[in-house]
Amino acid sequence: MSETVKYVLDEARIPRTWYNINADLPAPLAPALHPATKEPVSPADLAPLFPQGVIEQELSTERSIEIPEPVRDVYRQWRPSPLYRARRLEQALDTPARIYYKYEGVSPVGSHKPNTAIPQAFYNYAEGVPRITTETGAGQWGSSLALAGAMFGLDIEVYMVGISYRQKPYRRAFMESFGAGCIASPSERTAFGRSVLAEDPDSAGSLGIAIGEAVEEAVQRADTHYALGSVLNHVLLHQTVTGLEAKEQLAMADDYPDTVIACTGGGSNFAGIVFPFLGDALRGGSDLEAIAVEPLACPTLTRGCFAYDYGDSAQLTPLTKMHTLGSGFVPPGFHAGGLRYHGMAPQISHLRALGYLEARAYEQLECFAAGLRFAQAEGIIPAPEANHAVKGVIDEALACREHGTSKAILFNLCGHGNFDMQAYTDYLAGNLSDLAGSEVEAAMALSGLPSVAG
Amino acid sequence: MSETVKYVLDEARIPRTWYNINADLPAPLAPALHPATKEPVSPADLAPLFPQGVIEQELSTERSIEIPEPVRDVYRQWRPSPLYRARRLEQALDTPARIYYKYEGVSPVGSHKPNTAIPQAFYNYAEGVPRITTETGAGQWGSSLALAGAMFGLDIEVYMVGISYRQKPYRRAFMESFGAGCIASPSERTAFGRSVLAEDPDSAGSLGIAIGEAVEEAVQRADTHYALGSVLNHVLLHQTVTGLEAKEQLAMADDYPDTVIACTGGGSNFAGIVFPFLGDALRGGSDLEAIAVEPLACPTLTRGCFAYDYGDSAQLTPLTKMHTLGSGFVPPGFHAGGLRYHGMAPQISHLRALGYLEARAYEQLECFAAGLRFAQAEGIIPAPEANHAVKGVIDEALACREHGTSKAILFNLCGHGNFDMQAYTDYLAGNLSDLAGSEVEAAMALSGLPSVAG
Repeated sequence: MSETVKYVLDEARIPRTWYNINADLPAPLAPALHPATKEPVSPADLAPLFPQGVIEQELSTERSIEIPEPVRDVYRQWRPSPLYRARRLEQALDTPARIYYKYEGVSPVGSHKPNTAIPQAFYNYAEGVPRITTETGAGQWGSSLALAGAMFGLDIEVYMVGISYRQKPYRRAFMESFGAGCIASPSERTAFGRSVLAEDPDSAGSLGIAIGEAVEEAVQRADTHYALGSVLNHVLLHQTVTGLEAKEQLAMADDYPDTVIACTGGGSNFAGIVFPFLGDALRGGSDLEAIAVEPLACPTLTRGCFAYDYGDSAQLTPLTKMHTLGSGFVPPGFHAGGLRYHGMAPQISHLRALGYLEARAYEQLECFAAGLRFAQAEGIIPAPEANHAVKGVIDEALACREHGTSKAILFNLCGHGNFDMQAYTDYLAGNLSDLAGSEVEAAMALSGLPSVAG
Repeated sequence: MSETVKYVLDEARIPRTWYNINADLPAPLAPALHPATKEPVSPADLAPLFPQGVIEQELSTERSIEIPEPVRDVYRQWRPSPLYRARRLEQALDTPARIYYKYEGVSPVGSHKPNTAIPQAFYNYAEGVPRITTETGAGQWGSSLALAGAMFGLDIEVYMVGISYRQKPYRRAFMESFGAGCIASPSERTAFGRSVLAEDPDSAGSLGIAIGEAVEEAVQRADTHYALGSVLNHVLLHQTVTGLEAKEQLAMADDYPDTVIACTGGGSNFAGIVFPFLGDALRGGSDLEAIAVEPLACPTLTRGCFAYDYGDSAQLTPLTKMHTLGSGFVPPGFHAGGLRYHGMAPQISHLRALGYLEARAYEQLECFAAGLRFAQAEGIIPAPEANHAVKGVIDEALACREHGTSKAILFNLCGHGNFDMQAYTDYLAGNLSDLAGSEVEAAMALSGLPSVAG
């Protein structure tokens, strides 16, 4: 067997700044629009939801934005995260490719999400805001904001998609262990929740509904802000700490990626690992193949429209120009992983439209098979989301073998699978299946997309 | 809030040798006895179960035993593990004590167990043994050996305590994801399993029964060895990698512990963090307060006999002189954590009898409360086992506050709670209770202790 090859940065080398790709975009992003007026949103429009520190970052075009020391202090608990050369996987695949993975499962919640939860909590804390609402699907993001709330002494209220709330009681306990509150969505606490329940008392909930409830509560309470775990510019910015570290670690290996691969839900994981390298390419410093991998059950980048759409089902959020399946889209229920959001980060959508990244969609069975292959070679069971990236990496590595070419492939193993063993249990028992294309079509037909596209 | 203080060793400083406390014992251990002849066991007696490399370690009195390079190569995936100064917990407790914790939750299975699973698998691999059986309770140890098997290409068969097999399907999926087999115990596969089922077709199983089945299969199959996750000398030896690293990390902090605290089930976690420091004390280099913390539901060190007893319910294993509650002991069922083994490592029992360590037993509710206090201060939810150590640490730190004294307290946070959220769910819902002493008495009365004591 091959040895473990791990690149560890000294903690003094946690990046001091995040990288803002807005500084290097070849054409500016389309502005976000106010949901009522359809005029570009102003900082004042965002003030009921976000602290000033976050609003400035959302709109900034500065290339480097300082990471506050209190944020670096908390980051230090698990950062810098390790970068590995996947020698045993390379050997198992008999590939000439050099495969590297950044591992974000070392965070206290087991994923990359705290990279943005910590600064979002910090900016609220610094501005004296004592309380934040948010939404969560499977619970990764809610857990991360719960952790961040504990670190800065904030009250956190999490609207959790109802079906997950009932199916994943452990995630709720996880959030509550950090002192956060957790509410099944749709709920009776908000006007929007009540309207959903009036129409469908058995509603399973969705991310779009939960966002609507969390935003409504934040808008109505003066002591409360809102936090989102993906999609927005400032969230993607915070995640670049992963790619910036990876760049330093690859320099230790005297290497640079030809290809960077990441799974995409709302896009923050992808942006985090890809943007610092894509920025080099945008500034003319390198070529880069950037590959976004998504589930066929929620094919936002591969089959969505590039259009203005709402971030939530309540249509309370600003409209952003993005790849979208429609704000009412709900992925077919037998899709076992995360990556269920109807939209895609505007920055990523924009770069996709400009031709700077490739997108692929995979079926779930081939992703789980890839994940087990990775686990048995490298000793880490990936989160089902990360399995999409693993599948993309294995395909690329096998193509290298076929063509007799070598290249450096980097991906982000954005989380471990410890909380997702139900999905693996189902997979191992043969209880998961792939989708028929018609099921996705049916979900898209119900999503409300035609009314917002264009 | 306070900053994170973390001591990270360069990976080149993973220890090159384990520390063997047999070299420094003030009086030798009582020998293990053959279960049939009651004569001291010889290396030949152990050969059906263990590879030579392990047998030599079991009987060795050399102080330093080399860690093979292939083991260090796998260790490197997560080792050296971090050592933290628990500044935020100190602040929350307003204590003058300096609290340090070693964090073993960074391993791919989330606990300290791979520290011995990896070398045990390696020695079997190196001697050409293709297959290992073992037992597991909640699944931590079985997962660790499954991981180790994947790393060295061995087949692993895990007898899992039946009630856990049914209640914790995720742990089974975890083992199977690494390619291991998992069997509910008692099973129809072994004579001992069949005899238990004949007497009680609904048997919930126990660690003692599962060990009996795993040993029986290993004895009967020429291609199969057995591995144990705690208790034996070689297992404790392998775990010293944690204390040896901690000693180097405390030197970075220019500190040395006055008190080392660890929870005890079979004793390997305790030995791992304590023995390297206790060895200094035994050789006259320092004073040390060593505190073993166990659950009141399984009070091996605080209420067991120090006597020769079997390691398993089938009475197939050698007899060792140890603190024991009787090889038939089953902790009351509403005890939510691990630490359920009836016996205690002979080395620890011996040192306890000689007066070198203190033992305490806690109720489960106070341990969960301590664990949540830790989580909200430090951002990591401990495994329920580790909560016992946390409770001990908090008590010591509060005593320092009361007496206005400072001291350095080190403990091993031997695992995270990701896989134990059912226990936290029950605790948060108010569904856990403390034990009446009479329930432990009743369990002890059924354990068969009187027949083996003396």
